[in-house]
Amino acid sequence: MSVRKKIGEILKNYDPANITIGTICSHSSLQIFHGAKKEGFRTLGISLKKKPRYFDGFPLAKPDDFLVLEDHADIFNHTEELIEKNVILVPHGSFVEYLGPENFLKLEVPSFGNKEVIPWESNRKKEREWLESAGISMPKEFKDPKDIDIPVLVKYHGAKGGRGFFIAKDYEEFLNGIDRSQKEKYTIQEYIVGTRYYIHYFYSPLVEEGYRLSKGSLQILSMDRRDESNIDEMYKLGSQERLKELGFYPSFVVTGNVPVVLRESLLEKAFDMGAKVVESSFKLISGGGMIGPFCLETVVTDKLEFKVFEISARIVAGTNLFVTSSPYADYIQQGLSTGRRIAQEIKLALKTGRLEEILS
Amino acid sequence: MSVRKKIGEILKNYDPANITIGTICSHSSLQIFHGAKKEGFRTLGISLKKKPRYFDGFPLAKPDDFLVLEDHADIFNHTEELIEKNVILVPHGSFVEYLGPENFLKLEVPSFGNKEVIPWESNRKKEREWLESAGISMPKEFKDPKDIDIPVLVKYHGAKGGRGFFIAKDYEEFLNGIDRSQKEKYTIQEYIVGTRYYIHYFYSPLVEEGYRLSKGSLQILSMDRRDESNIDEMYKLGSQERLKELGFYPSFVVTGNVPVVLRESLLEKAFDMGAKVVESSFKLISGGGMIGPFCLETVVTDKLEFKVFEISARIVAGTNLFVTSSPYADYIQQGLSTGRRIAQEIKLALKTGRLEEILS
Amino acid sequence: MSVRKKIGEILKNYDPANITIGTICSHSSLQIFHGAKKEGFRTLGISLKKKPRYFDGFPLAKPDDFLVLEDHADIFNHTEELIEKNVILVPHGSFVEYLGPENFLKLEVPSFGNKEVIPWESNRKKEREWLESAGISMPKEFKDPKDIDIPVLVKYHGAKGGRGFFIAKDYEEFLNGIDRSQKEKYTIQEYIVGTRYYIHYFYSPLVEEGYRLSKGSLQILSMDRRDESNIDEMYKLGSQERLKELGFYPSFVVTGNVPVVLRESLLEKAFDMGAKVVESSFKLISGGGMIGPFCLETVVTDKLEFKVFEISARIVAGTNLFVTSSPYADYIQQGLSTGRRIAQEIKLALKTGRLEEILS
Repeated sequence: MSVRKKIGEILKNYDPANITIGTICSHSSLQIFHGAKKEGFRTLGISLKKKPRYFDGFPLAKPDDFLVLEDHADIFNHTEELIEKNVILVPHGSFVEYLGPENFLKLEVPSFGNKEVIPWESNRKKEREWLESAGISMPKEFKDPKDIDIPVLVKYHGAKGGRGFFIAKDYEEFLNGIDRSQKEKYTIQEYIVGTRYYIHYFYSPLVEEGYRLSKGSLQILSMDRRDESNIDEMYKLGSQERLKELGFYPSFVVTGNVPVVLRESLLEKAFDMGAKVVESSFKLISGGGMIGPFCLETVVTDKLEFKVFEISARIVAGTNLFVTSSPYADYIQQGLSTGRRIAQEIKLALKTGRLEEILS
Repeated sequence: MSVRKKIGEILKNYDPANITIGTICSHSSLQIFHGAKKEGFRTLGISLKKKPRYFDGFPLAKPDDFLVLEDHADIFNHTEELIEKNVILVPHGSFVEYLGPENFLKLEVPSFGNKEVIPWESNRKKEREWLESAGISMPKEFKDPKDIDIPVLVKYHGAKGGRGFFIAKDYEEFLNGIDRSQKEKYTIQEYIVGTRYYIHYFYSPLVEEGYRLSKGSLQILSMDRRDESNIDEMYKLGSQERLKELGFYPSFVVTGNVPVVLRESLLEKAFDMGAKVVESSFKLISGGGMIGPFCLETVVTDKLEFKVFEISARIVAGTNLFVTSSPYADYIQQGLSTGRRIAQEIKLALKTGRLEEILS
Repeated sequence: MSVRKKIGEILKNYDPANITIGTICSHSSLQIFHGAKKEGFRTLGISLKKKPRYFDGFPLAKPDDFLVLEDHADIFNHTEELIEKNVILVPHGSFVEYLGPENFLKLEVPSFGNKEVIPWESNRKKEREWLESAGISMPKEFKDPKDIDIPVLVKYHGAKGGRGFFIAKDYEEFLNGIDRSQKEKYTIQEYIVGTRYYIHYFYSPLVEEGYRLSKGSLQILSMDRRDESNIDEMYKLGSQERLKELGFYPSFVVTGNVPVVLRESLLEKAFDMGAKVVESSFKLISGGGMIGPFCLETVVTDKLEFKVFEISARIVAGTNLFVTSSPYADYIQQGLSTGRRIAQEIKLALKTGRLEEILS
């Protein structure tokens, strides 16, 4: 029995009047809880070792209850409890990273979106297959580091926030940068020079109004740019060439986000890219393809062309900038965050008896 | 008969109860339509070849109707239709660029603001005349590239979003950077090192309360900083000196915007600069001088002095960041964008029978 | 009689129904007045030589009255007038800088927060004592410039907005950078490479709900990153090494701010740091320790560790970004700025008869 089917069985016993929205306390959980509370849901925070205290400072985003785990795998000992409480989990980047994409797939608790999408964002080869099949322009990839003849970014697989990524301009610089103790696989990608826009989409299979796809509709709720330590500010000390002599190397660890808007003339293309990615997911990814929030991580070149270097197939932390206002969501509904949009989708599904279509 | 007079004639037949606010679908049109709808106006989107789809994703900013043109000049075949629909056009940067400043002047459809201002922002010589006559401090200009003895920015005329701009430190670097195939004129301007603030003003000839000028009043609604590809992020790859060896040159194409606020102690000066620019326009520019939104594009040096390197004499795209909230507009009125402010000005003019004073 | 006691005496004659909130017109005064007005207080703007005009442009933040001083010391000639008007002063960075921290301490007008805290933020030695006693990780400090063996930032004492700060990598660069005409003392601090987050806290001794400390509670209301001229954008011209040849040196003068959010997984630590700083102040600083808004100025390294390089023990100008919306305050209360939070604290103290506890 597929996960989807099993979840369908579980949902039959869910009480639609008593749904609890739960997630792991990290990443974008404040926003997810805040949105769920706004839409009238009970909320459950899942944490490690102890109840985090920072929610005490944010009463409108504090979950009603907490479930404290010994370690992240411990969640598997609590699936019955979660099901009894009619919990719908909302996955986010840390959720997936902590459990591991494979384990998340095995988690038999109803989760927002399509679990089968997660392996496609966690594996750079599958990710490229998905995006290229959608006709998205990506940075060139090098299989053999000896072929490097343009500036490249070397990225380790997984979503560890960028640690250990490095830039190389040729094979020699590649050898200098590579961490031989690292067991994780890496990808060598053309480094595109331009400005970065992380576009926060929401695909709804339930709503037919708006920007329509072959089924359902697509929204752009906001955009951000990631802060990366230490690459963002290391230039202040001197040139990279000089810094390397002093023992400083660039790193790309995400520490936060800043808000941005994109040239309006690029929005048509931005929607078109998002639409193609969703349509392509219908064919490639079992379980119904992409559902809910996702993010295309783009660079806009000085030719005003998008290059997409990554997709996140769930809520991204950059949406945390936009709790009650976003230059894009403000054109849709006052006070609409991605976290709240998720809760609205669940509410709509409950109302129309289509919960199975948006959970897995 | 001057354009202004002709527009006055046309306006006599306009039905004040059935005004439609129209603009070309690009640049800041989402915001313009959103603001117009908030103030109760009908809206018309003018597009090329086909109806853009991205408005479907933003229902609160979607124009009520579309007018699809074959090419931008085709708008001249539709002036009667526009007039019949009681359309007031709102010009923006792409609007002016697509039509060309000269053609825009000839467009006999009532437009918000004073059309005669446009040539003053589109021609760098006139722009400098305007700003310097207002006592604004600008970067030094070099007539002869051989005189370059400080870092300069070489800018081609027109508002093509910065493409082809380059930095040179002396004549040799100028020769290396200049594009001999370019037919457009260029300007050589001192490159001021500092932090950039794009200040979004709104001048109303109708409102006497507030920050008063010799007639009317001035507001600051918001501020942004432009994202420029590829200059903003190219430092991450290495020093410019090294990058040039690899064939990478800096470019200054605007791709989006980030929000900023300015040190409060500089606001008095910011208002003063805006006021001087408006007062000076009364003398220099026929048709009533500056009306409505404009932007001073400034650098603040480490001596806390403003240098103004450009003026935009109409709504700028940086205002797109501030749809329902801005750290400055929030001190004026909740939910006030520049787009909405334009609609309010039209509404006030309709109410007080002064439409002719703010249109041309 | 201690300042605190004297203020207590003065407060006995204050009319709780007629309190006026006053501050010097600069820094964050728009926000302070706006917040005070929202909470129903009268407001008083204190300015130099003449009434500033920029408030005319911001009606919701314009003080009801102005007090015009000859020079900042002139405020001492107006204490009786201020007391008669039941004025509560709100100190900010420019307020403290204009008067001088020592003079501010002597100002016998009720002021929000604990005046005794100010010398601890104005003196880098005391600042370090405070932060280190709280267990906060700070950049390493060098007493002797000859010991410099890692990149350092040389900072002059006082809060002059960063002018004259410079980076040195060794003793030679220190000698090149130091301004021998400067009389102010300097500090030599390890330069931490990472991304900067200026965290805006509010500590209330009155409110027991929320993120609780041994007494009272702590909030995070917003975060910003400071714009610094000319360091932020000077890289666009070329490498620092090359620029120095051309006579350009980096400077660190604060000109404005941009909004940011922090990785959610770092919030627990951010609260913990803020809590420790407040708890430590109870022991170190007479008069009740830290009260009201403060800011930890942090760098997040690529190991996701905080380094705190400064504390501001009053409202910071970065809060000016968040007048009616902040990604953190939105989880507490709609429309909550730091300025408004101050006014709310005063209102609560008035209501519960505890004004003496939050003023000095």
